Amino acid sequence: MFKKILYPTDFSEDAKKALEYVKKLKVAGTEDVVILHVMQSSHIEAMTTPCEWMEGDTEKCIEKMEERLKKEAKNKLNEIAKELSVNTKTVLKIGKPFMEILKTAEEEKVSLIVMGSHGMGKIEELLIGSVTENVIRHTKVPVLVVKRYR
Amino acid sequence: MFKKILYPTDFSEDAKKALEYVKKLKVAGTEDVVILHVMQSSHIEAMTTPCEWMEGDTEKCIEKMEERLKKEAKNKLNEIAKELSVNTKTVLKIGKPFMEILKTAEEEKVSLIVMGSHGMGKIEELLIGSVTENVIRHTKVPVLVVKRYR
Repeated sequence: MFKKILYPTDFSEDAKKALEYVKKLKVAGTEDVVILHVMQSSHIEAMTTPCEWMEGDTEKCIEKMEERLKKEAKNKLNEIAKELSVNTKTVLKIGKPFMEILKTAEEEKVSLIVMGSHGMGKIEELLIGSVTENVIRHTKVPVLVVKRYR
Repeated sequence: MFKKILYPTDFSEDAKKALEYVKKLKVAGTEDVVILHVMQSSHIEAMTTPCEWMEGDTEKCIEKMEERLKKEAKNKLNEIAKELSVNTKTVLKIGKPFMEILKTAEEEKVSLIVMGSHGMGKIEELLIGSVTENVIRHTKVPVLVVKRYR
């Protein structure tokens, strides 16, 4: 039931809170945790836009920037893996977060998804983030949604 | 983290599936489970409508019908309580399900809500029930949403 957990993280405070629940579930039989970060395509595009304004090889600049962003994300994933005392696998994907979360849940045949409720959207009116909402709607796997407040 | 669980049930198959998770969480430290059923006001009204068509005391008829529905629900709640090996409290409320679930979560100061994703709506297109969706949106408590399929 709690054997293999998918923990998608955007490295936000909400996601950190959800990690506490992942840790705690070890006593309920968690053996494997897949730690997933999805780099948003649109975000990468925005980050690499300056390459087009600069002199020199635009392609190479974009490539370098992407590599740097990936390396940063990988380091963060590895830091999280260190915190867990079960088997871990870190996965870095590029695309639409909720789509990649759904895909990874299928690929890895996880038994539970544990995630924060807000993600990057910090607006109080948004009581639940669209990524989380879309995951809950479309996955067949149980989802533990962890709120920011408690 | 998993000390006091609110388990709202509409006695559906989905809710039964969620109960398995409630049971399993005992190893993660669950001490108390509040088992809640909300009788929908509109549902009770529909059920007591025939009283108005019958001869005799309408008020008394409605009262009797309501008592019967309550008794049935209470019996079902007690059956569920018997299945659990932690402290249980059964709560029967009348009103809007999601509102009463939110209220009960506050009143009982629960640390987690475990519930099915569909509720009574059996239409396949409805990937998640409105009761569950509204609870996730408005509660401050973590919610474990259990899907029908696995």
